[in-house]
Amino acid sequence: MHNKNGKVALWGNQYIFNMAHTLNDYLREVETLFKEERFIFDPKELYEPIDYTLRLGGKRIRPTLLLAANALFGGREEEVRGAALGIETFHNFTLLHDDLMDRSPLRRGQPTVYTKWGDNTAVLSGDTMFALAWRYFLRQPTPRLREILNCFNETAIEVCEGQQKDMNFEKRAIGDVSLEEYMDMIRQKTAVLLAGALKIGALYAGAPDGEIEKLYAFGLHLGLAFQLQDDLLDGYGDTAVFGKKTGQDIRDLKKNYLVLRALQLSSRQQADELTRLFGDAALDEDERVVRVMALYDAIGLKPSVEEAIGEEFRAAGECLGRIDADETLKAPLRELTATLVGRKK
Amino acid sequence: MHNKNGKVALWGNQYIFNMAHTLNDYLREVETLFKEERFIFDPKELYEPIDYTLRLGGKRIRPTLLLAANALFGGREEEVRGAALGIETFHNFTLLHDDLMDRSPLRRGQPTVYTKWGDNTAVLSGDTMFALAWRYFLRQPTPRLREILNCFNETAIEVCEGQQKDMNFEKRAIGDVSLEEYMDMIRQKTAVLLAGALKIGALYAGAPDGEIEKLYAFGLHLGLAFQLQDDLLDGYGDTAVFGKKTGQDIRDLKKNYLVLRALQLSSRQQADELTRLFGDAALDEDERVVRVMALYDAIGLKPSVEEAIGEEFRAAGECLGRIDADETLKAPLRELTATLVGRKK
Repeated sequence: MHNKNGKVALWGNQYIFNMAHTLNDYLREVETLFKEERFIFDPKELYEPIDYTLRLGGKRIRPTLLLAANALFGGREEEVRGAALGIETFHNFTLLHDDLMDRSPLRRGQPTVYTKWGDNTAVLSGDTMFALAWRYFLRQPTPRLREILNCFNETAIEVCEGQQKDMNFEKRAIGDVSLEEYMDMIRQKTAVLLAGALKIGALYAGAPDGEIEKLYAFGLHLGLAFQLQDDLLDGYGDTAVFGKKTGQDIRDLKKNYLVLRALQLSSRQQADELTRLFGDAALDEDERVVRVMALYDAIGLKPSVEEAIGEEFRAAGECLGRIDADETLKAPLRELTATLVGRKK
Repeated sequence: MHNKNGKVALWGNQYIFNMAHTLNDYLREVETLFKEERFIFDPKELYEPIDYTLRLGGKRIRPTLLLAANALFGGREEEVRGAALGIETFHNFTLLHDDLMDRSPLRRGQPTVYTKWGDNTAVLSGDTMFALAWRYFLRQPTPRLREILNCFNETAIEVCEGQQKDMNFEKRAIGDVSLEEYMDMIRQKTAVLLAGALKIGALYAGAPDGEIEKLYAFGLHLGLAFQLQDDLLDGYGDTAVFGKKTGQDIRDLKKNYLVLRALQLSSRQQADELTRLFGDAALDEDERVVRVMALYDAIGLKPSVEEAIGEEFRAAGECLGRIDADETLKAPLRELTATLVGRKK
């Protein structure tokens, strides 16, 4: 056996060969998984939108986390390929239905399913994707199957609850939504799926409960940091690198971290102005963006948000540090964290 | 132990007490299950439509089949309560999304979820119901869990495929859809879920594969008979008993068994007339119903459809007869079959 950085561990009664993978190894493996998988069956009207969605790409963060977490505890990669496909298929199902509900015309620069094939196809192909995710999870037997599926399903329910809370925010004034409520919403809508992917990977490897808990906490902090970064980029991204117009959340009157934090930091007068800018439906969209951003700058919002993001990344790193596992196996997770810290899009 | 009609069977290494239930016992048990279950959690905007849907009632055929099939092979009722809730929750999820896609304003005489709460709520509460169905299925550990969940999930995928095929028919002319295609569509959209419910009940009881196969075939025939009966009632139901206007499928230009079978039995001239009636968008709806029904009568359609339904019921009964199980335990399934044979709504 010649394994670059290889190590051999005794697990149960069989030898497992762990190669210390880099982040890029995992990303490539996930790409290969999706490339080799067939998504079109009969009737094609149902499956073509699914194939389209799953081949659009994206960052593939969730299956990558799942593979890396599995390796962290000496798991066998061939046992988690189904789960890796499943978690990404589920994630793309939620995007497909969210785009329909939010009436978002573009995803990854391409037309969304409902704009291309209509609302009904978006509903039904989405439903089918959810079931396909289950098919992937059920592909391979595993001793902790019920626990794994419970984790997946409870995560799915939380994602739905988070999406509903996000939609509820739309009907409320900015001053009425607290920062705590916002953090709770993004925890459910975004963070639990990253944490769940990690937990599932670790469960397949038979990791101890205590270690899984630390890994889950790592995932939650990473997910929160990721979403706050998203909010920051919406306001302060470099359009050329970001790939889309900044200020879209302001245009959509979306309650994101920026506006809710700005409200906290505002003087009474600034808060009134911000509330007015978010309440004036007649105001020109671009005008609104310019005025809100000017207000953010006057408040000194950016460094404060960067600090909050830094705090989540720091907490994530700390959780990862406390996990009892080989440092070389933690490296891809640290690498992913670092990539997300510095991301520009 | 005092069991009315009780019998004691040795199964594995424990005693199981089977009371010979009637169909009404099972229906009552299912009602109790739903009555005692809580469906409202936070956020209420997500769960209220779910609670509304699951409390609307309906025939509760699928969980009843599941309970009866479980008892047929000496299963323990307390082990399949989760699955019974799960299969009915899944069924109601498909109705909720189907009503949205078909723009059906009423279900069981009440406003459908999308008319009451809007499209987005229908999408997201439906998605959540699918996940809740999984939660019920995962509630209790069981030795054949993976097999049971696979059966549930493959059934779910077939139901989606069947719904897509049904939507595809809408875009085609009546002469272009064959009776075989129609039977394949209703097999997927309706029959596999009845068959799947039975199979799942039997799997929980640890029934032998050969017996499960016969039970599944019984379910398919029952499901086909059920759907053909539905089509017949749409044309020939007694409005007072049926509870809704007859001829709705004709109004909706829906390709159902009646029109496709009529086309088979038609002379060239009658076929042309039928095609014309289904192709003339300008024709008054009531006028269309009257003319199509007159044509059906001229063709002698009704007895031919009744014969096809009778044939499915006969085949169902034959499958049930071949199953190696106590006749007293088969009685509720025979009773349910008989109820469906004679149903007027």
